[in-house]
Order: sequence, then C-alpha cells, then structure tokens
Amino acid sequence: MHLSGKMLLQLSILSWLTCQAVLSPVPPDDIFKYIDDHKDEFVQRLTDWVAIESDSSDPTKRDQVNNMMEITKDFIIKLGGKVEMAELGEQVHPSGMKIPLPPVILAEIGNDPNKPTVCFYGHVDVQSAKKEDGWLTEPYTVVDKDGNLYGRGTSDDKGQILALLHAVEAGNTIGLPVNVKFLIEGMEEVGSNGLDTLVEEKKDTFFANVDYIVVTDTPWLSKRPGITYGARGNCYFLLEVKGARRDLHSGGFGGTVYEAMNDLIYLLDTLADVKGHINIPGIYNDVAPLSEKEINLYKGLEFDLDDLEADTGIKQFLHNTKEELLLYRWRYPSLSIHGIEGAFSGPGSKTVIPASVIGKFSIRQVPNMNPSVVEKQVKSYLEIKFAERKSPNVMNVSMIIGAKPWLADMNGPQYLAARRAVKRVFNTDADMIRAGGTIPIAKTFEEVLEKSVMLLGIGGHDDAPHGQNEKISKYNYIEGTKLYAAFFQELAKQQDRPS
Amino acid sequence: MHLSGKMLLQLSILSWLTCQAVLSPVPPDDIFKYIDDHKDEFVQRLTDWVAIESDSSDPTKRDQVNNMMEITKDFIIKLGGKVEMAELGEQVHPSGMKIPLPPVILAEIGNDPNKPTVCFYGHVDVQSAKKEDGWLTEPYTVVDKDGNLYGRGTSDDKGQILALLHAVEAGNTIGLPVNVKFLIEGMEEVGSNGLDTLVEEKKDTFFANVDYIVVTDTPWLSKRPGITYGARGNCYFLLEVKGARRDLHSGGFGGTVYEAMNDLIYLLDTLADVKGHINIPGIYNDVAPLSEKEINLYKGLEFDLDDLEADTGIKQFLHNTKEELLLYRWRYPSLSIHGIEGAFSGPGSKTVIPASVIGKFSIRQVPNMNPSVVEKQVKSYLEIKFAERKSPNVMNVSMIIGAKPWLADMNGPQYLAARRAVKRVFNTDADMIRAGGTIPIAKTFEEVLEKSVMLLGIGGHDDAPHGQNEKISKYNYIEGTKLYAAFFQELAKQQDRPS
Repeated sequence: MHLSGKMLLQLSILSWLTCQAVLSPVPPDDIFKYIDDHKDEFVQRLTDWVAIESDSSDPTKRDQVNNMMEITKDFIIKLGGKVEMAELGEQVHPSGMKIPLPPVILAEIGNDPNKPTVCFYGHVDVQSAKKEDGWLTEPYTVVDKDGNLYGRGTSDDKGQILALLHAVEAGNTIGLPVNVKFLIEGMEEVGSNGLDTLVEEKKDTFFANVDYIVVTDTPWLSKRPGITYGARGNCYFLLEVKGARRDLHSGGFGGTVYEAMNDLIYLLDTLADVKGHINIPGIYNDVAPLSEKEINLYKGLEFDLDDLEADTGIKQFLHNTKEELLLYRWRYPSLSIHGIEGAFSGPGSKTVIPASVIGKFSIRQVPNMNPSVVEKQVKSYLEIKFAERKSPNVMNVSMIIGAKPWLADMNGPQYLAARRAVKRVFNTDADMIRAGGTIPIAKTFEEVLEKSVMLLGIGGHDDAPHGQNEKISKYNYIEGTKLYAAFFQELAKQQDRPS
Repeated sequence: MHLSGKMLLQLSILSWLTCQAVLSPVPPDDIFKYIDDHKDEFVQRLTDWVAIESDSSDPTKRDQVNNMMEITKDFIIKLGGKVEMAELGEQVHPSGMKIPLPPVILAEIGNDPNKPTVCFYGHVDVQSAKKEDGWLTEPYTVVDKDGNLYGRGTSDDKGQILALLHAVEAGNTIGLPVNVKFLIEGMEEVGSNGLDTLVEEKKDTFFANVDYIVVTDTPWLSKRPGITYGARGNCYFLLEVKGARRDLHSGGFGGTVYEAMNDLIYLLDTLADVKGHINIPGIYNDVAPLSEKEINLYKGLEFDLDDLEADTGIKQFLHNTKEELLLYRWRYPSLSIHGIEGAFSGPGSKTVIPASVIGKFSIRQVPNMNPSVVEKQVKSYLEIKFAERKSPNVMNVSMIIGAKPWLADMNGPQYLAARRAVKRVFNTDADMIRAGGTIPIAKTFEEVLEKSVMLLGIGGHDDAPHGQNEKISKYNYIEGTKLYAAFFQELAKQQDRPS
C-alpha cells in the first residue's frame, strides 16, 4: 500500500496519542548510578574538549579540528570501539588555497547480529567564538556557574557527543544491549563538506547493517525533553541586479542612472507582505493540509511564549497562541530577507551608488513542497515583476540551496524507544517536535540510506548554540547521558525491528 | 538691493555670454617657459610626494600624513612663505582610541596691501589604495605611461597642490602680482575634522585680508578646462527599523516574527520610482526654476556621452541628451539608496533574520532647497508610510549630514580672471560647470567668511580620483601649472576688486 505523507502523518499522530497511555515510569538502575557517580569526571572531559579550539570556519585552526578528531577517536577506542578515519580530500578556499579536510570518524562498538544496530551522528567542530563578541567568560574555558556549563561547544555539539559516549561507557559496565555506530565529523558548522558523498560511498558497507540513525545535535523546545521528527527545507536565493560596470558616486551620477539598488529594493519588496504572507503565486499549493488531530498534538506541547518574549525582546509576534506560533514555525513556509551583498554595509555614511547588488532571501518549505517547483515559481514571479518595472538593468535569479523538508514516521520503533527512555529518565512524556530550520543530513540519511532517522538531542532550549555565552545545563548534560543509556535498553526491547 | 538666487544666476549667465566676445588669446610668456624648462623636476617632486602614504583613513599611517604636512610646509617656506601649523586637537576613533589630528597649514607669500589676496585651499592626504584592490601598478609609486602619471594622489590632490606651488615658484622669478595664502589640510578624505571650526576661529585674523578663495581640488567636465561655480548639497539619512533584541535564525523564527528587514525594504521602496523621481511630497517645491538662458549655457558645454558610456558601462541613462543629463546631475535633486547596515552583506549564504537594520540613503539638493525643510519632509513622509504599514517594529529616521548646495556668482572678478587665464593657456573658452556632488568647504568659506569662492582645479575628467589606477595627465599637470601662474596675473589685472 502506498501511504501519502498526509496519511502517514495522521497514522503516526494516532499511534502517538494511543502510546501515551501505555508508557509508565521505570525506576532508575545501576547504569544511572554509574553516571551520577562519574559526573565530575564527565564535566572534566567536557572541559578538556571545549579547550580545543576546533573552529572549522577558521583555516588557521584546522590543526585543532584534526586534534579534536584524534582525541574523539582515542576515546572511542578506549570504550572498545573500532575506528576508521575516512579522508574527504581537500577544501578549496575562495582565495584558491587548498587545505586538507579533517577526516570523518566511522566507528562501531559491537556487531552482534542479534542486536539492533543504531548509528549516531554528531560533530566535534564548533562555531567561531571570541571574548570580544560579547562573551562574559572565555569561550574556550568551561565555566561552571548557576548550574550551567558555559563555553563554545558545550551544547553544540561536544556536550551531546560526550553524553552519548559516556552513556556507552556506562552501558559497557553491564554490556551494551545494542550495536552502536558513530559518524562524527569536523566540518558541520561550515556545511559538512564532502559528507554526503561519503554517506553514499559507505551505503553498502558501513551503513549496510544499520537499523536506525539518530542525530545527536539538536535542542529541546522547552525544559521538557523533545524528540524531533521533522524539519523544514530551505530554498536560498540570490537575486542580483547589475547596473554600471563600477560603483558610482551619488553626487556625480545621482539623478542620471537607473540605480541597481532601487530595482533590487523594489523586487525584494514584492516578495512578502508585512504579515509574512508570501506573494509568490502558487507557493502555498503543495502545503500538506492541517488535520484536527495534528492541532491536538500541538496543543499538548510545552512552549512558553513569555520565555520566547524574554529571549528575543519581541512584544508582538505574528501569531498569538502557542499552537499557531509553532504551526507557522514548523509546518508552513516562510520567507526571510537576509541582506544585500555589494551595497554599503558599514557604519556611518558612504555616498556610493552600488554597481551590482545581490539580495539574499530564502524560503523555508514544508511537506509536500518541492524545491524545484519553488525555484520555478520564484524565478517566474521575479521575471514578471522585473519586466513590469521596465528597467534597463540586468536581473539574475539563482537558487543556491534547495534542501528538502524532512518528516519521519514518529511511530517507528526507535521513536517509541526514545519516548520510553524519556519517560524513564525524566518522568514526563517527550514533546514530539519539529525543527523550523533545515537539517540536510537527516534528509540525506533518509533518502540515501532509506533508514529511519530521528533527532534525539539533549541541548536546552536556551543554550544559544551559535551565540555568545553558549552553555549546557549540568542537568541536561548528566540526565541526557542517562537518556542515551536508557535509549539503548529501550531500543533493544523493541520487537518489530525494521528489516 | 536684494538679489534672489534666480536673479543672480540669470545675471551671471548674461555676463558670461557677454564676456565670451571680449576674451582673446594672449601669447605665452617667460613664466610659461620656466614651467616647461622645469617639468621633469615637477614630475619628480610629485613622485616624491606620492611615495608618502598619507592615507588619512588609516590611523596607523598618521605619521605619514604628518610627514606630508611637514614636507609641504618646508616647500612653502622654500618658496618664501610664512607658515603657521594650526593644531586641531584629537580625533576619537569608534574604538575609543584617541590620536592627534594632523596640523593644518596656514601660509602666506606676500602681503602687499596694494595687491589682491587670494587664498587657495587643498589637501595632501589621500584615499586608501592597495595593489590588490585592482591597481595595475603600485599605487604609491608614480608610473609615467602613455602621457599619464599613475599613482594615488596624483590628481586628488597632491598633483593639483604641487601645480599651484610650482606656479608660485615660476611667478617668483619675476615677482608675484598677487598675495597668495594657503590653507592645506591632511584630513580631507575623511571629512576635514575640525576644519570648519578653524576657519571660523581665523575669520578675523588669517582670513581678514583675503579677497578671493580658490579651491584646487576639482576635476574638469571634459578635456576642455572647467571652472566650477556650484555644487549640490547633501542630506544623508539613516532609516533604522528595530525588531528583536538579537539576530534570529530564519529557521526558528521565519513565519512568526515581523521582520525588521521587510519593513525597511518596504520603506526604502516608497522613496523613489524607477525613473529616480522622488516620491516625497513637496520635495521639488523649492527647486529654482530653469530659464531659457540657463539652457543655452548647458548647450555650450563640452560633454561626451560616449565617454560616459564607455567609462560606466551603462547603455541607457535616465536622460538622452547632454543638456538633460547635466541638468539632472547639477541642478535637480536626486535620491540614492546606498546600502543597509546590520543585515548580512558577505558572499554566500547566511540564514539570519537581522534584528535591527539601518537603511542609508541621501538626497542631493539644489538651490533653493533647504536641508532643514528636506529633513522635515522626509521624516514626515516616512512616519506616514510606516504608520500605514501597521508593523509593531520601531522606526527611527535621522539626518546625519545636512550640507547645503553652493552656487557662486560666476561674474565675479576671480571668475573673469580664471576664464582669461584658461583662454591664454589653452586657447579655448572654459566650461562653466557645477559639481553634482557636494563641496561642504565651499559653502563654509562662503557662509563663514562671506568671500567669493571658486573651484579652479586641473584634474582630468577621467582621473578616477577615488578609484583604482588614479592618474593625472602630464598635460594637465604642466599646463595646469601654467593656468595657476596665468591666473595670478589675470587676477592682478582685475580692477573691480571686492571691498
């Protein structure tokens, strides 16, 4: 039987609602005690890892990324793992300089054919961070304050990877009930260069016996643990308008030339209205319809609008209820204008008429939208609008990212196992959530490997993973370790393993 | 009798048309021979001056700006001048760092009360220049090629200052017929910090006996020498829209927030239409009406549209004739959007929703527009447009530059003297031109000192003074030296000196 996306979604919501009744708390066991007994050691290891400035965006720190890969490899070997360091070749910088990409860790612990095999994905590179960006503490020195561990990478993603590895360490004390594999990279923060190709190459070898894929690089929606089953896609557009051959002085040329910037501003203004409604014809045609059951799912989620207001300083959102806000974050498309390349962007004044300008905007799309359809709709619309303007300048539209949305069957065995693990460790039901952003690797795993993918992370909703003062709470870090340990056990208990 | 700007303009055009008949070529004299005999030395001195990287925008090169002031002082003293180095205090950088401003040269050569006194203004600092910006040669090494001297500052303004000083040197051989003063600064390229105040302070001392002020920092309109009698003003606006407290991720927030960037794009799009017509009500009310005689003046100008097309790569301008193009450059207001601060401006993609964005636009205004009226019109218009939008974001409009247009009486004695000098040296009538840009110092001299101001420069129309491969032609440099030398003589002959 062929199930449509909508039917699958409704089925899984139904199963989810049914499942709530059968979950019951399970008392903590010896593995949890091991984790509690070793928490100082776990914090110390995170401190050591954060001290390595594995900033993948800075070519001068590539040695530290490589060092981080080695340290991770050594720790996995210490836990009993077999590790292959897969080389990805070279990265070519815009300057033309070539530098070797860090290797990717492909590791396995256990290969018992009677146990399910779960492969975890994560990364040990980090975003750039400098004290002068507005950090209150040194970003590469973990500071333990008010129950939080501050430092670059504590939440994204060294803390989450370590929680997972410490869960394996704890599990080893009584024997791991599942086979565990790891795919750990060092270029996630700059676009995971080469990873897609590697996944395709390893489909019939490393990934052949993998039953489930879990991404451990994701935050919760609130203080309640969340399991992520979907993400929006992203179509990123460059909208270029070319005027003169060189920048002109607004004194000498203002009033005599068709200014490229004016045309660009006009075009960008046609894209969406004040309420964020996208003006491009047909753009909403393929959005999956919303069912009553799905609305009920949203009603059960924990999400604090006051928290969001305090975090962002925004007093009036486009929508007033928790449900509406999350629906528009997760399952409706949105359009954002990010900026303009080629125009004056510094402080103060400059009296330039920019010669060529490139507007940057993106559309987050949702099931069942298709990037190639979106691309056609956007290009056709902008061509009509530009023709109406009758400007002699030249317009070019290109879509440089066309990442599809991802939506998993939240009723699969690993989802049920994760929900049971959450219930055991936190004594609460998990929030079943989506990401408003895009998780290309999830879609790649699903499409290339045809495996069930789940995002089970332990990042707090307020960790500021790419911002200043990134942190993870000690609670999330240690209880999150227990979550992974419990997940191994619950996954082993699932009878209906996928074939 | 009070003459309106319009009447003055018509009077001066009338006088100008009349004057064409009485000008007649005068044979070159000994001073010109002196200049021809010393041209290699003059080129060498320009080479020496250009080698000093007196880039005023770079605080680390402040020593070289100071060095340049000293060298200029020494040369003026060698020519028989008395020099005062006026201190301007400190410059405070955005970082909070304070560095001393370079001193300003106040110099005089001769103080015979029976001779007219002319004060020349110019500068010896330069715009920044790096080979990698696209220079074909080292910017601080003068390269003599195809009749041009390439190098940063050859045209703007070291070459023009040196032509003037060499004219004094030549004049000294037979005795200068006028008293000459110099106001030479080292911060022109970054806004002439402190100069206005200095001019006001020196009004009753250094400037008390000055009859005429000549700015030697200006290009011609074509290959024919030009004398500049007017410039547009500039009202520069910052249009800020504030949304969230911090930048947001378009995945997590797209579709749920009123994006500041959308509001800004909308507001910027309301300012002008595709043809550059400014939509702000009342903005054209105070533009001086155009007379038939003024149109005739424009018809006589030499201006090559093909040159302009070749230079800019623009195939279709807003206006098709030379006259219209110059009218819209010089005597009608224009609005240009320069860029946006606070949004993404780099290459590639970034999925940010900028929290606060500042649009930069400016209006070049013309007689008889008033910056304070323009400010009110712009603010009132944008407030109405923003209110119509009904966005909860916050808008702020501020005018950070309000420079008035400048228009001189082109029939004044120094204008007649300059035109005679042009005729003598180049055997052609001068183009009487305006600047589309803004020359705040001209307006300051006129308003504060109440003196006649003229722009008599020797820059070529294609010198690219702020661009890559700046140059001055040897023809302009050497014949321009003769122009200044002839101007001294013609000015001395003018009988009707201003009181």
